[in-house]
Amino acid sequence: MQRSLAFTGPCGGAPVPGVVLYGLGAIGLEVARRLVESTEWPIIAAVDADPAKVGRSLAELTGLDSAPPVAVARELPAEAPPGAVALHMAGSRLPTVEPQLVELIEAGYSVASSAEELCYPQLRHPEAAARLDALARQKGVAVAGVGVNPGFLMDLLPLVASTVCLDVERVEVERIVDAATRREPLQRKVGSGMTPEQFEALADREEIGHVGLMESCALLADGLGLAADRIEEELKPALAERQIRTDYFEVAPGQVAGIIQEVRAMEGETVRAKLHLEMYLGAPDPRDEVRIVGRPELRLVIPGGTPGDSATVAALVNAIPRVAAAPPGLHTPKDLPLTG
Amino acid sequence: MQRSLAFTGPCGGAPVPGVVLYGLGAIGLEVARRLVESTEWPIIAAVDADPAKVGRSLAELTGLDSAPPVAVARELPAEAPPGAVALHMAGSRLPTVEPQLVELIEAGYSVASSAEELCYPQLRHPEAAARLDALARQKGVAVAGVGVNPGFLMDLLPLVASTVCLDVERVEVERIVDAATRREPLQRKVGSGMTPEQFEALADREEIGHVGLMESCALLADGLGLAADRIEEELKPALAERQIRTDYFEVAPGQVAGIIQEVRAMEGETVRAKLHLEMYLGAPDPRDEVRIVGRPELRLVIPGGTPGDSATVAALVNAIPRVAAAPPGLHTPKDLPLTG
Repeated sequence: MQRSLAFTGPCGGAPVPGVVLYGLGAIGLEVARRLVESTEWPIIAAVDADPAKVGRSLAELTGLDSAPPVAVARELPAEAPPGAVALHMAGSRLPTVEPQLVELIEAGYSVASSAEELCYPQLRHPEAAARLDALARQKGVAVAGVGVNPGFLMDLLPLVASTVCLDVERVEVERIVDAATRREPLQRKVGSGMTPEQFEALADREEIGHVGLMESCALLADGLGLAADRIEEELKPALAERQIRTDYFEVAPGQVAGIIQEVRAMEGETVRAKLHLEMYLGAPDPRDEVRIVGRPELRLVIPGGTPGDSATVAALVNAIPRVAAAPPGLHTPKDLPLTG
Repeated sequence: MQRSLAFTGPCGGAPVPGVVLYGLGAIGLEVARRLVESTEWPIIAAVDADPAKVGRSLAELTGLDSAPPVAVARELPAEAPPGAVALHMAGSRLPTVEPQLVELIEAGYSVASSAEELCYPQLRHPEAAARLDALARQKGVAVAGVGVNPGFLMDLLPLVASTVCLDVERVEVERIVDAATRREPLQRKVGSGMTPEQFEALADREEIGHVGLMESCALLADGLGLAADRIEEELKPALAERQIRTDYFEVAPGQVAGIIQEVRAMEGETVRAKLHLEMYLGAPDPRDEVRIVGRPELRLVIPGGTPGDSATVAALVNAIPRVAAAPPGLHTPKDLPLTG
């Protein structure tokens, strides 16, 4: 038996008149390239604080001749065309990025940001979150943190999976990344080649480790309605068991090869959610895995794991129509419309 | 390094004053049991057309003494308490269920329904979809189709996965169910023990096969903005290669052991989405699998597959706060708020 039905497709959301890129680091430049290639979302401005970038053209910075005639500016264009969206890619922590977000909102942009803490700012910065929400509502724009981790893998994906589970006792998410297969900044970021003492000193000052795991966990606990009373985090170095050599690092046995980080949502002494991240040179069996302990029990595996960089770029680009379609205010990844 | 932050949790959505169960078949009764056990959502009425059920108590039908003192009625209570939700579990096809949905909406209930065609009624019944949407808006209630397939596995889950992929060329979803491990009605539904001729005759009249695959595909194509022009469906019997005996059926070689069904979103001769379902006695390697062919390419596996019945029950119960929180109108599973 065969049959066929005509499909007229979606009507599509409101058009986005233009996109501003705020921050042109590695991710920002890759986002710029994808936007230039896709032609769907015109870049109308690019902003970066780096004097080495200010004044240079997007064509030069991206290496794409087809880039629009936009030069990197130190300052944001004062006023946004109605409906314009800014992609903010200039920091991880809310205290650092709040003034930048305020500037964007004041100018009338809806904002999707890669700032990890913005995925659930209510956890560490409830007052800043309330300020941003109020300002965004007042200006009639939407603001949201987006990304892969946080923003997808350890929060949105398990929340979506849990829509078909009842009596959820516990959620466990595991992400294993072989840092040796990733680019140099990531290998550096996880502490490759440090001594354990150097690592612990940085860890105590919150200057090493993956930012956003606690935010993912809080977002998950919120979405699931878990009766958790606190979020705990543990970070330790993965130490090299033998000599490791990558394109960028040489690590001796006993030196740091990366991080092992775990965050738990606790109800008294009961673990209600556990997010476990291993990111080190040579980590075996890279994968992402979500396990919902409920009725039914559900296990979901991404063999090889979600590629962090390209997926982050995609999350930002895909967020353009999503924040454009969202109601005014501050949104977490679970509240942002799925499509534009 | 260890740290801990207090978590105060979500404020939670508006309370739902009561739930009406509309349809008390196998799924409806299981939903009733879960609601009685959870005590979170009080059952205020139960409706069924079956004379063998009308007048009997929920305690008797569910076997749970703790059930509230509700007797099954032939007629819906005329007026819903403000904010009440109905779970509709009384049919698959929109022409059959539209009058029931109208009755529920007219009475003031927000509705989550297991009717497969309601997950994307715009495909086969655009006029009925527009009527339901207009009526729901007029009455200030939300209406949505929910479920596992359609509603989760082949539409919502790949759409969520695709938020971290760009340049999506094609999406492929595969669901392999060993029908021998499922209950009798499912083994019957897939045609176990029929001759190939009996199967083909039923297939031509759309009286066999899984309902909702085309709707999943249309919802996926809509959400991804695929430039598809038609949705194609193909259904054929899986024939037994040797004698098969289950608790309910005895199937001779050459007789029907189940279904192989595939739906494709086509742009000209290019496949943009492919949903493949195999559900037959003894199907090897049961699993669900989503593959997004894009940048990055993403593969997501649910080993063993999502358990259909218990996950459907969960999807319905979890939909109570979701439809209660949704704005008035008709929603697809991708537009319904993820949480209440």
